[in-house]
Amino acid sequence: MLLKILELVGIVAFAMSGALVGVVKRLDLFGVFLVGVFTAVGGGIVRDLLLDIHPPSSLSNWRYLGSAFAASILVFYMHTVVSKLNREILVLDALGMGLFATTGATIAIEAGAQPLAAALIGATSAIGGGILRDVLVNEVPLLLQRDLYAIPALLGSAVLVAAHELGVGQNVALVLGTVLATGLRLLALWRGWSLPQARMPRED
Amino acid sequence: MLLKILELVGIVAFAMSGALVGVVKRLDLFGVFLVGVFTAVGGGIVRDLLLDIHPPSSLSNWRYLGSAFAASILVFYMHTVVSKLNREILVLDALGMGLFATTGATIAIEAGAQPLAAALIGATSAIGGGILRDVLVNEVPLLLQRDLYAIPALLGSAVLVAAHELGVGQNVALVLGTVLATGLRLLALWRGWSLPQARMPRED
Amino acid sequence: MLLKILELVGIVAFAMSGALVGVVKRLDLFGVFLVGVFTAVGGGIVRDLLLDIHPPSSLSNWRYLGSAFAASILVFYMHTVVSKLNREILVLDALGMGLFATTGATIAIEAGAQPLAAALIGATSAIGGGILRDVLVNEVPLLLQRDLYAIPALLGSAVLVAAHELGVGQNVALVLGTVLATGLRLLALWRGWSLPQARMPRED
Repeated sequence: MLLKILELVGIVAFAMSGALVGVVKRLDLFGVFLVGVFTAVGGGIVRDLLLDIHPPSSLSNWRYLGSAFAASILVFYMHTVVSKLNREILVLDALGMGLFATTGATIAIEAGAQPLAAALIGATSAIGGGILRDVLVNEVPLLLQRDLYAIPALLGSAVLVAAHELGVGQNVALVLGTVLATGLRLLALWRGWSLPQARMPRED
Repeated sequence: MLLKILELVGIVAFAMSGALVGVVKRLDLFGVFLVGVFTAVGGGIVRDLLLDIHPPSSLSNWRYLGSAFAASILVFYMHTVVSKLNREILVLDALGMGLFATTGATIAIEAGAQPLAAALIGATSAIGGGILRDVLVNEVPLLLQRDLYAIPALLGSAVLVAAHELGVGQNVALVLGTVLATGLRLLALWRGWSLPQARMPRED
Repeated sequence: MLLKILELVGIVAFAMSGALVGVVKRLDLFGVFLVGVFTAVGGGIVRDLLLDIHPPSSLSNWRYLGSAFAASILVFYMHTVVSKLNREILVLDALGMGLFATTGATIAIEAGAQPLAAALIGATSAIGGGILRDVLVNEVPLLLQRDLYAIPALLGSAVLVAAHELGVGQNVALVLGTVLATGLRLLALWRGWSLPQARMPRED
């Protein structure tokens, strides 16, 4: 029950971040709505395609689609207010990312994926929406450039898979993986951590 | 029979619009061909992936691929002539969009998708090719920016699903949904309708 | 056995070309790694999605992912050295392309795809990674613009499918298709062959 609510919070945060990008890119009402919804449920759709779950569960889920829809429309009409909540959205987005990484890995394990594939598919659930968002609005995905976002997602889903392999109970594993992924993401945001770029000759 | 012919007309119109974009973007012969074919059958491929139809039916369909191929090559060699037919292509494209939305929703229902998923997958069949086209040539998809294109597609597939739920015969539902989607699209083109963008502060 | 080694060589060449693009685009360590790995295994993932192989075999294959990972990291830290080997990478990449086209078509035939679909899916295995790479870093895919890359891939997979239809043994067909595809690609690189662009009015 708590998990369901937290997942909805993550969906809403994802949709808001996507819709804000759509507003900045001067998309029309449908564009803002599509980018918002895709950011929210795109990772889950890719996950389900990889796992042979047809049609993807997000497409039949009124609760997910409705929340993402409502959040996107809200952003469209109140984006000046919403964009002031940037910090709060980043925190909720970090929570959504952690939850999607661990629940995605859990769904992959239940669908019979091997450990390596389950960890990768879990991380894909968490970062896929953001990559699709940036491809749609014609930007190099932010998380390939400087955001420390994918590493926490990979860590969270890897922890869940490792815990499962070691026989740890599912609830403990979910909490552990989510707290680690979300915590590391928040720490990176707070401290401004980022990964290095390759050194260019003239920088040597 | 008439349906098959109309679908081919839609495929050809989609391929022409895609190939014209490829010519404008200065792609080579293969690029023009690939973008044309992808615009024509990309929506159907995504639909089949979502519905677990493997391999996607378009990939085994000589008639579809051949028509899209021929249309793309024609555009490559005669693009100055074809681009003068812009208005005619837009009308045929609207017809193809309406048909794909309703036949896509029908295929989704037959594959066992629930109403919400069937409506979304039908619309995806209709708009997926255009989105893939714009992503391939590195543009923000036109239908996210100002074209009133996706709403008619959603309407057409929603009408088909609703008619099916209400027990309306399939042929009636197909005609109804297609006429509504194509009609609304043509009306929007004719009257220059478009969706609003989000208001920016200095516009208030 | 030899085939496995050659495939790993192709994977490494693909990953290197992808990671080099990531370095040029100033991605961070994760970005370089993701683009490298995606270039290497993206075509195979799309192939498996089209053929209903779940989860895609590349995602459970430590050898492939590990090689692609190692090659990407190597490029990140030693890109000045690696980029001097551009010519050697192009040759290995041509070998990988030929192998992926023929092994992809073989896998498609074994999964029950019809000849046309098998040839197209084989070519997709070979060129899909490069297209995904360019979409991720926000460029119009090189092979749509001027590279003679997709035609050799289509030729190689078509030869394999034709040989299979004619009852030629699988090993002979694999060698034949791969040599033709790789040979044509190398010849095109050597002689600077490319496909024409559409003629523009003022060029007439």
